[in-house]
Amino acid sequence: MSKQSISGFPEWLPAERIVEQHVLDTLRRVFELHGFVGIETRAVESLPALEAKGETSKEVYLLQRLQSAKAQQEEGAAPQKLSSRTLGLHFDLTVPLARYVVQNANDLVFPLRRYQIQKVWRGERPQEGRFREFTQADIDIVGFEHLGFHHEVEAAQVMLEALDALGIGPVRMEVNNRRLLQALLGTPGEGTNDQEFAELLRVLDKYDKIGADGVEEELTAMGVGADRIRLVLEVARISTSNPEELRQRVLALGVDSDAVKSSLNELCSLLEGASRVAPGQVKASLRIARGLDYYTGSVYETLLPGYEGFGSICSGGRYDSLVSEGRRVYPGVGLSIGVTRLVSLILREGLLTPTRPTPTVVMVAVNEEASRNYSETVAEALRHRGISAEVSHTATKFGKQIRNAERRGIPYVWFPGTGPDGEGAPELDTVKDIRSGDQRTADAKTWTPPTADLRPSVVPRGQGTTH
Amino acid sequence: MSKQSISGFPEWLPAERIVEQHVLDTLRRVFELHGFVGIETRAVESLPALEAKGETSKEVYLLQRLQSAKAQQEEGAAPQKLSSRTLGLHFDLTVPLARYVVQNANDLVFPLRRYQIQKVWRGERPQEGRFREFTQADIDIVGFEHLGFHHEVEAAQVMLEALDALGIGPVRMEVNNRRLLQALLGTPGEGTNDQEFAELLRVLDKYDKIGADGVEEELTAMGVGADRIRLVLEVARISTSNPEELRQRVLALGVDSDAVKSSLNELCSLLEGASRVAPGQVKASLRIARGLDYYTGSVYETLLPGYEGFGSICSGGRYDSLVSEGRRVYPGVGLSIGVTRLVSLILREGLLTPTRPTPTVVMVAVNEEASRNYSETVAEALRHRGISAEVSHTATKFGKQIRNAERRGIPYVWFPGTGPDGEGAPELDTVKDIRSGDQRTADAKTWTPPTADLRPSVVPRGQGTTH
Repeated sequence: MSKQSISGFPEWLPAERIVEQHVLDTLRRVFELHGFVGIETRAVESLPALEAKGETSKEVYLLQRLQSAKAQQEEGAAPQKLSSRTLGLHFDLTVPLARYVVQNANDLVFPLRRYQIQKVWRGERPQEGRFREFTQADIDIVGFEHLGFHHEVEAAQVMLEALDALGIGPVRMEVNNRRLLQALLGTPGEGTNDQEFAELLRVLDKYDKIGADGVEEELTAMGVGADRIRLVLEVARISTSNPEELRQRVLALGVDSDAVKSSLNELCSLLEGASRVAPGQVKASLRIARGLDYYTGSVYETLLPGYEGFGSICSGGRYDSLVSEGRRVYPGVGLSIGVTRLVSLILREGLLTPTRPTPTVVMVAVNEEASRNYSETVAEALRHRGISAEVSHTATKFGKQIRNAERRGIPYVWFPGTGPDGEGAPELDTVKDIRSGDQRTADAKTWTPPTADLRPSVVPRGQGTTH
Repeated sequence: MSKQSISGFPEWLPAERIVEQHVLDTLRRVFELHGFVGIETRAVESLPALEAKGETSKEVYLLQRLQSAKAQQEEGAAPQKLSSRTLGLHFDLTVPLARYVVQNANDLVFPLRRYQIQKVWRGERPQEGRFREFTQADIDIVGFEHLGFHHEVEAAQVMLEALDALGIGPVRMEVNNRRLLQALLGTPGEGTNDQEFAELLRVLDKYDKIGADGVEEELTAMGVGADRIRLVLEVARISTSNPEELRQRVLALGVDSDAVKSSLNELCSLLEGASRVAPGQVKASLRIARGLDYYTGSVYETLLPGYEGFGSICSGGRYDSLVSEGRRVYPGVGLSIGVTRLVSLILREGLLTPTRPTPTVVMVAVNEEASRNYSETVAEALRHRGISAEVSHTATKFGKQIRNAERRGIPYVWFPGTGPDGEGAPELDTVKDIRSGDQRTADAKTWTPPTADLRPSVVPRGQGTTH
C-alpha cells in the first residue's frame, strides 16, 4: 500500500492499482455481459436524503465551503446551519440509486438493470479492512410496481459469476429469505410492525459471533418465551447446500402455513439457481438475517473461505420498496461488493499479483539524442498495432537504458539499427526480451509480443510473476 | 442530461453514460499505449495542502462529520476549528499528484509517467460548462531532479492522439513557452521575482477577450511604458503553425539573447513535434500565457473548432518544480482534459451518439414461465462467447416481449424453439434482428452478431444510430 498520511483513505502504488483495475474491469465486463447498464451518480446527496435511511446517518461527511468556514471563524459567528440544502457525501450507492430512479423514472425502462462502481465515504473510525473512503461495485434490478422473484436468483448468479471471474478462488455465498424468517418467527398479525421480530433478527445475525448460548441469553433478557427461543435456535442451525434437505428441515420445524411453503419454495429456487452457476459454493443459512437493512425477500452474504474473519465481501437483498413516490413503488434486488476491502485483502495476502507494474511492453532505446526521432518512429509503429511502447528518456549507454527498463518492469527493449542514415552497412533493429536475454532482429511494422505480454494482467497466487 | 436537483452536479442517463464511458475508455487506452501507469489518489487532502496553491483555495469544499456538526448546533458551540488536520475535497489532480510523489518517492521509478482520471470538486458558482463536481483526465511526466525537454513535446503528442481518438473531429492546440515570454518581456535581472512580468502575463492572457486596445489600456494603467506596450502587442500577434515563420517573426522583434534563442528552439521543436502527430492542428500563439499557473516552460491550450467560446478542453504546461522536498526537486509536465465539460458539450451538440443505450445484444424471449430455465441456458451459452444477453423479465406474448426489447434498444430477440422437451416435432431456436425484421434459425453455441453489434459504441454526428 502507498504510504498513508490520512488514516482510512487508502491509496495504491501503480502495481497495486493494476490489481484493482483488474478487479474493476472484470466486474464491469461480467455485469455488462448480463445486460446491466452503467451509471454514476453525483458524490453528494442532500442531508434529508442521507438521513432517511436512519442508522447510517451518523457516518456522513457534510460539505462546507472553505470561504464560509473561514468567515465563521473570523466573525465568531454561529456554525453552519444544517438544512435541507446541506450537502453530504454519499455513504452507499443505494440511496443515490433510489433518488436517481425517482428523478429519471420517465427516461428509464423498467426493470432497470444497472451497475454502479463508485467511491463512497463514511466518517467512521477506520479499522482493519474498514475505510473512510472506499469503492463499491453494486448491481441492482429495479422494477416498476412489480419485480419477478426470478430476479432474486439472477442477481446472485451474476455476482457469483463476477466473483469467480476475479480469479481469487471459489467464494462461499450464504442465502436466506426474510419472508421465510417472518413466516417462521414473526408474531402472527403484526406484519411489518413486528418490533419483537425485528429484535429477533438482530440477535439472530449475531449467532456466529455469540453462539447459541449468547442468543438464548439475549432473547431471554428480551422476555422471549422458552418455546420461542427453542424455535429460534432450531432455525439458526439450519444451514445446508442441499435444497431437499433444506425443505425437509424447515418443514420439520412444524410451523405450517402457506407463507412458509411459498417462501421456502423461493429459498429452494434461489439455492438451486445460484448453485447451478457456482456448484458447491452456495448454502442456505437461516441465521443470515441482515437485520439492520430493510430487506423483504432474499438476502445474501458472501465470504472468502480462509478469510471468514475478514467479513462479508459481497452482500445484499431484496427490497419490496427500494423507493416509492406517491403511489408509485419501485421494488428492487441488489448486491454490493466492497471493492476496496476486497482489494486490500487480495494485496495483503498476495492472492493476485500483477505480471508487471506498467502497461509498457517495449522501451525503445535511443542511440544518441540526435536519433531520438527514429526511436519515436519505432514506438509509433508499435503503438499503431496496439503494442504499448515508450522511448527511453535518456540516450545513455545501452546497459543503463536496459537497467532502467528493468526497474520499470518493462519486458522488452528495442535497439534501433543505425537506420537508413547510419554510417556504413545499415544494421537492422533488434528486440531483446530482458527476462530471458533472448535478442533477435525485428521490424516495428510486424513484430508482435506473445499475447501474455501484450498487457499487464494478474496471476493467482503461486503462479509467480514474470519479474 | 439526467434531471438535476443540485445545480453544478451533473448526472447522465444510461445512454449518455455510454458516451462518457467511450471517452474515458479511449483516453485510458491511448495513455496506456504510451506507457502511462494509472493511479488514483484519495478524494481528500489536508487543508494546508489545498491552500498551498493559493488562488484556487477559495473553491474548496471542506468535510465535517455530521455528528460533530449536529453537536455544534445543539450546544451553540463555536464552529468547526480549521486546522492542519481539516480535510477538504481535492479541486484538481495536480496537488494530489505532488503529494503522492513525495510520499511514495522511494517506491516510484522516475521519470514517472502517470495518468489519473478522477472526479474533482470546486465550490464555485455553476455556469454553462462549469461544474462543482467534474471528472478530469490528467497525464503528467514527473522527473527526479531533471526532466528532458523532449517530454514537453511528448506530453502534447499523447494528448493530441488521445483527443483525435475520441472521434469528435480535429482539435486545435495552441502552444507557447513561458521561458520565451520571459526572455522577451521579462525585466532583466528580476527572474522569478518579476512582479511586473507576472502582471503582464495576466493581461496577455486576456488578449482574445479584450483585444489589443484593452491590453494597451490595462498596461498603460499599470504604468508600463509605450515601447514596452508596443513590444507586448507585437508578441501577442505572433501566431503561426509554421516553425520557420515563427522563428523569423520572433527574431524580427529585435530582442536578441541566448535565452530567446534557446527557448525559441524549444517552441519550434514543440510545434514541429506536435504537428507531426496532428498535422494542421497545432499553432504557436505567443499570447497563450496561462498566467494564473506556475508554469516555467511549454504551455498548452486546446480548443474545439466551432466551439471556441466553450473555452479550453485540454490545457497544461511544464513546471520546473511540480513539488520539492528538502533539496529534492521534481520537475513535471502535464496536461489535463476536463472530461465532464467535454462530455457535456458532446452531448449537448450531439457530436457523438451511442449506437444503443444498453450493453445487451440479445434478449432471449421466454415462451412460458415454466421454460425460463431453457431461455437462461441460451443466454448463458451466448455470454460464454462474450455476447451480452439477458432473459426477458416476463413470459408475456412475443409481441410484447419484442416491444420491450425495442424500448430498451436491444437489437436482437431470441425465440426458443420448443426444445427437446417440447411437444411434437422439436422446433429450432430463431433469432430476429428487430431493426430489419430479419429472422433466421440459430444455435446459441455458434450464432454471432456482426462485430458492430457486439458492444454499444459511439458514432460521430451525421452517421445516425441503429435506432
